[in-house]
Amino acid sequence: MSSIARLLGDVAQRGIVNVGVESFAGPPAAQGVQVVSLDWRPPAAGDSEVGDKLAGLIGHQAIEEANQVAVQRMLDCRPVWVDVQPAAEALPELRDERLLLHAGPPIEWDDMCGPMRAGVIGAVLLEGWADTNEAAERLAASGAIRFDPCHHHDAVGPMAGIISPSMQLIVVEDPASGRRAYCNLNEGQGRCLRYGALGEDVMQRLRWMNDRLGPSLQAALRSLDDPIDLKALTAQALTMGDECHSRNVAASSLITRLLAPALARHESLGGIESLDFLRTNDYWFLNFSMAASKLCTAAGHGVEHSTVVTTFARNGVRVGIRVSGVGDEWFTAPAAEIDGLYFPGYGPEDANPDIGDSAITETYGLGGFALAAAPAIVGFVGGTTAEAIRASEEMAMITVTRHREYLLPVLGFAGSPVGIDVRKVLDTGLEPLITTGIAHRTPGIGQIGAGLTRAPMECFVAALRAFRPPPGRE
Amino acid sequence: MSSIARLLGDVAQRGIVNVGVESFAGPPAAQGVQVVSLDWRPPAAGDSEVGDKLAGLIGHQAIEEANQVAVQRMLDCRPVWVDVQPAAEALPELRDERLLLHAGPPIEWDDMCGPMRAGVIGAVLLEGWADTNEAAERLAASGAIRFDPCHHHDAVGPMAGIISPSMQLIVVEDPASGRRAYCNLNEGQGRCLRYGALGEDVMQRLRWMNDRLGPSLQAALRSLDDPIDLKALTAQALTMGDECHSRNVAASSLITRLLAPALARHESLGGIESLDFLRTNDYWFLNFSMAASKLCTAAGHGVEHSTVVTTFARNGVRVGIRVSGVGDEWFTAPAAEIDGLYFPGYGPEDANPDIGDSAITETYGLGGFALAAAPAIVGFVGGTTAEAIRASEEMAMITVTRHREYLLPVLGFAGSPVGIDVRKVLDTGLEPLITTGIAHRTPGIGQIGAGLTRAPMECFVAALRAFRPPPGRE
Repeated sequence: MSSIARLLGDVAQRGIVNVGVESFAGPPAAQGVQVVSLDWRPPAAGDSEVGDKLAGLIGHQAIEEANQVAVQRMLDCRPVWVDVQPAAEALPELRDERLLLHAGPPIEWDDMCGPMRAGVIGAVLLEGWADTNEAAERLAASGAIRFDPCHHHDAVGPMAGIISPSMQLIVVEDPASGRRAYCNLNEGQGRCLRYGALGEDVMQRLRWMNDRLGPSLQAALRSLDDPIDLKALTAQALTMGDECHSRNVAASSLITRLLAPALARHESLGGIESLDFLRTNDYWFLNFSMAASKLCTAAGHGVEHSTVVTTFARNGVRVGIRVSGVGDEWFTAPAAEIDGLYFPGYGPEDANPDIGDSAITETYGLGGFALAAAPAIVGFVGGTTAEAIRASEEMAMITVTRHREYLLPVLGFAGSPVGIDVRKVLDTGLEPLITTGIAHRTPGIGQIGAGLTRAPMECFVAALRAFRPPPGRE
Repeated sequence: MSSIARLLGDVAQRGIVNVGVESFAGPPAAQGVQVVSLDWRPPAAGDSEVGDKLAGLIGHQAIEEANQVAVQRMLDCRPVWVDVQPAAEALPELRDERLLLHAGPPIEWDDMCGPMRAGVIGAVLLEGWADTNEAAERLAASGAIRFDPCHHHDAVGPMAGIISPSMQLIVVEDPASGRRAYCNLNEGQGRCLRYGALGEDVMQRLRWMNDRLGPSLQAALRSLDDPIDLKALTAQALTMGDECHSRNVAASSLITRLLAPALARHESLGGIESLDFLRTNDYWFLNFSMAASKLCTAAGHGVEHSTVVTTFARNGVRVGIRVSGVGDEWFTAPAAEIDGLYFPGYGPEDANPDIGDSAITETYGLGGFALAAAPAIVGFVGGTTAEAIRASEEMAMITVTRHREYLLPVLGFAGSPVGIDVRKVLDTGLEPLITTGIAHRTPGIGQIGAGLTRAPMECFVAALRAFRPPPGRE
């Protein structure tokens, strides 16, 4: 009897728990032994230096306390939709120079992916800085335009996330602090600039959004007795099948219903046309969810010793995070592929890697973290309701706490997990899950699908390297 | 050693399954034996004559086939919202005499409960048949008004369910058959005639609904390119936390958003006032759900040998059902109490027993049958998400099949159970579960709570007694 056979004989009665590499489960299973495989990965992605450092940080009192403070500030923030304004008005720096904001960590024209270049071209045309795609491209490449992340201006933008001076922005404010955050308006589905689509139809819609949608929304909102509490609306939407990143039909519908009479009363500004536009725009609320999530996560930034992620964004080439207690530095990794459902005629070979600021919703415990609220989404990738539930449970293993207002009915109204802790991501090997759209990699085409992806572990390894351990242990 | 002690000694290792009366579990449990109690009730509510008859009908080929036909007709029906019309226009019989329609099985003035009497008084005032509550009451008691169930006119009404000639009705049509069904418009929450509230505020809203809401809805709907498919809307709402009886916020919001621009374009008819009214009316869709359910269940009526319930309604005194293969006879029982959450200052002693035609939604596999879609509702009675899921699973034990379009996400997108089979109710002892509002028993007050109740077994016993067994077995 070989030693492996003897070993297996001993354990045959009790079965085996196989930890880590799944193929190790093969031989005993072949001998008829019951094997339970655990999906375990070595901490710190197997980097022993980072692993040693991580070991000294887990359970560290000063970090635990700092993380509680950071997340409490995120939860105390009350995002209220208070206004709609042109970007140049909300962000005066956009008036002073030719500046375009983009999604994700910093990137220059030469390095930008296809859909982001298309977004830049469309924005240049919209601003009248050039007359043709080619001229716009030349201008962008000439160095005459400065590019800066939306996140450096308290703003966020989905997909390419281009914000130019004339674009109308959602203005969200926390009444207690007076802090504000911004997001552009959602273009709907189909051929949209944010997905890198270009053409007269795309430009016409953008001009209409600037000239009619924005002003009528502004007038309608200002005419309400009360501004719109986005936290209450998001909480309600989570009990209605939205996870408020890739599924927003409930919140879009609720916010449109709330604003409908006021829009109707501003027909001369475009209010009724806006109701036509909103009638079937099931993604309308995404940009509100993003602005609200940006405001709340920003409130948790800058807490000394905190390992909580406060920014998480992708520019289509790199994914970047920023961490509450580690200043304003971005920690980046190559943008991930997306496991998705493609529109007919497209496939993974056409897909741009993960792009957009919309992962700010995951940073605030929505999207993939709230996937249990929206099992319809996992259907994108052939998944089941049980898998959606498990995703939210897994994300609770890498977060500091659970939301007290954002509740998940199917988990018995437990709060959605919130406050990604860099230490826990590295310790568990669980990368944050993101629900997202898929853009074609070639400029000018647009959306080709939607699916799920994960934030690369490499960002978290880099962040931990830069983290200065607090005194008091090690 | 006593015989019970010996018996318990024998089974102590294995435990006991206690079937039926729960108190039987006490003695063995006291001896330390593990007892699992099954909530079992004797078939046919213990009526041996009906029990014998039932035994001959279970698995009967002709009945099984008839039930498949009845439910298939119910599922094939496509309820489309095609119009809004005054009742006297949609139902010409309301022009020919002083006729009022009411919820539930037939009932005369002398026997009506408080909220239904209030509904009659309000309707008499609305029609101008009397000027004061007292005069209206005298008129109603004089015999000068004929009362008839809504269900006898292809119509349904929530709670008191009074339909009078000037009231505006939702008109729902199955395009394939041209069949129509009707329901009045929802008054919103708070002080409403359907709950038996009376007063100038109630009357003013009813007049406004007749004069402004109805006409603007009619014009808006008629101006759409396509009528509104209520089956698609209901299916969508079930994935958004509605069960489309006591929770309708998703569907109300979706249908308002769909109609908003068209309403805005009919300002002169009251379209913008209507948008104000719809802005916060989370029950708006209930009456659409009822009209659609009425149309579909009616399509399954009249199939020889079928034991499928096609009508299920309450007048506040009696609960009644009608059965596909048993003609138009009502089988009734005293209306049940409601296990509910009461508004401050009210309690069970104030509550009118179960009332309204809204249980037509349960008859079509919504409401209590789709409770897994809307776990928020069981919070009314201190229940949990798991209990909501179990309710839908239990209802699947008394139905013929599951919906193919009305799916429940939390059950892995299984269809909601549909087609209540009288035989299965009697065989399992499981009474159909209903989500409902609670009216004060005194006329003039209105809603005092909401909760859960069940259809009394006695209706099903009576229906089985009247059922003529098909030839071929026994």
